[in-house]
Amino acid sequence: MDSIMLAYIAGFLDGDGSIFFQIIPRKDYKQKFQIRSSIAFYQKSENAEILNWLKEIFGVGYIRHRKSGISDYTIVESKEVNKILLLLQPYVRLKKKQVELGLEILQKLEDKKSDKDFLEICKLVDKFKQLNYSKKRKITHEIVSKSLPL
Amino acid sequence: MDSIMLAYIAGFLDGDGSIFFQIIPRKDYKQKFQIRSSIAFYQKSENAEILNWLKEIFGVGYIRHRKSGISDYTIVESKEVNKILLLLQPYVRLKKKQVELGLEILQKLEDKKSDKDFLEICKLVDKFKQLNYSKKRKITHEIVSKSLPL
Repeated sequence: MDSIMLAYIAGFLDGDGSIFFQIIPRKDYKQKFQIRSSIAFYQKSENAEILNWLKEIFGVGYIRHRKSGISDYTIVESKEVNKILLLLQPYVRLKKKQVELGLEILQKLEDKKSDKDFLEICKLVDKFKQLNYSKKRKITHEIVSKSLPL
Repeated sequence: MDSIMLAYIAGFLDGDGSIFFQIIPRKDYKQKFQIRSSIAFYQKSENAEILNWLKEIFGVGYIRHRKSGISDYTIVESKEVNKILLLLQPYVRLKKKQVELGLEILQKLEDKKSDKDFLEICKLVDKFKQLNYSKKRKITHEIVSKSLPL
């Protein structure tokens, strides 16, 4: 992928996109919670063509058209999110810290061996949410720690 | 200015920026109305640093921090808007039509010789507003035509 295109996409992501991590309850998971990574691009549905263009480039993810008139293109698969963050890392400006911390989280998820490791990653997810100034934080590492035999 | 940077800025503009034209009543103007061109970049005020970076690059325009927590960097001077549109033209995707029509309007403003010319430009401004799906259209070319001795 050429650098001009990646720089454009990085600007588009900085302008109106989002990188985020969620801690999701999963009864059938070893650690009872899953960490989900997402990259999302938003646009008015009448401009959804640009989202199709992005999806063609990355070849993964899905597009949703919401009733509010906003469409989004979202990639959630960890390996794909990791790949896209690596591609955009040299070009992002506003979300530079998010990209760095996001890559760290994904690497640690790949390497995790114990519940303790998992809890450390949950702490990083909390830290990540602070970067995004999320006000809807629900499941923090404290909640995860209560359900793990540490 | 290098192409990587311009591609990034074009992506940023496509993601969350705006190009727009306004017809503004001006009693002291020959045609009673002024056509104002604007390029605006928006961002949460906590991320206003990126707007400072843009302003340093272009060396014109002004930044406002609104009470809503949103800041904007806006360039309104026609010659500067023209220059920036020309710089970004090869890289924009979503706003390609806006950039083309915007450059046409600015060229015609430069060349205008008569009230009739001015009214034609007002028609192009109306057309431009349709590209932006603006719902707040106030002064259209019809209103201008009523105040001109055509």
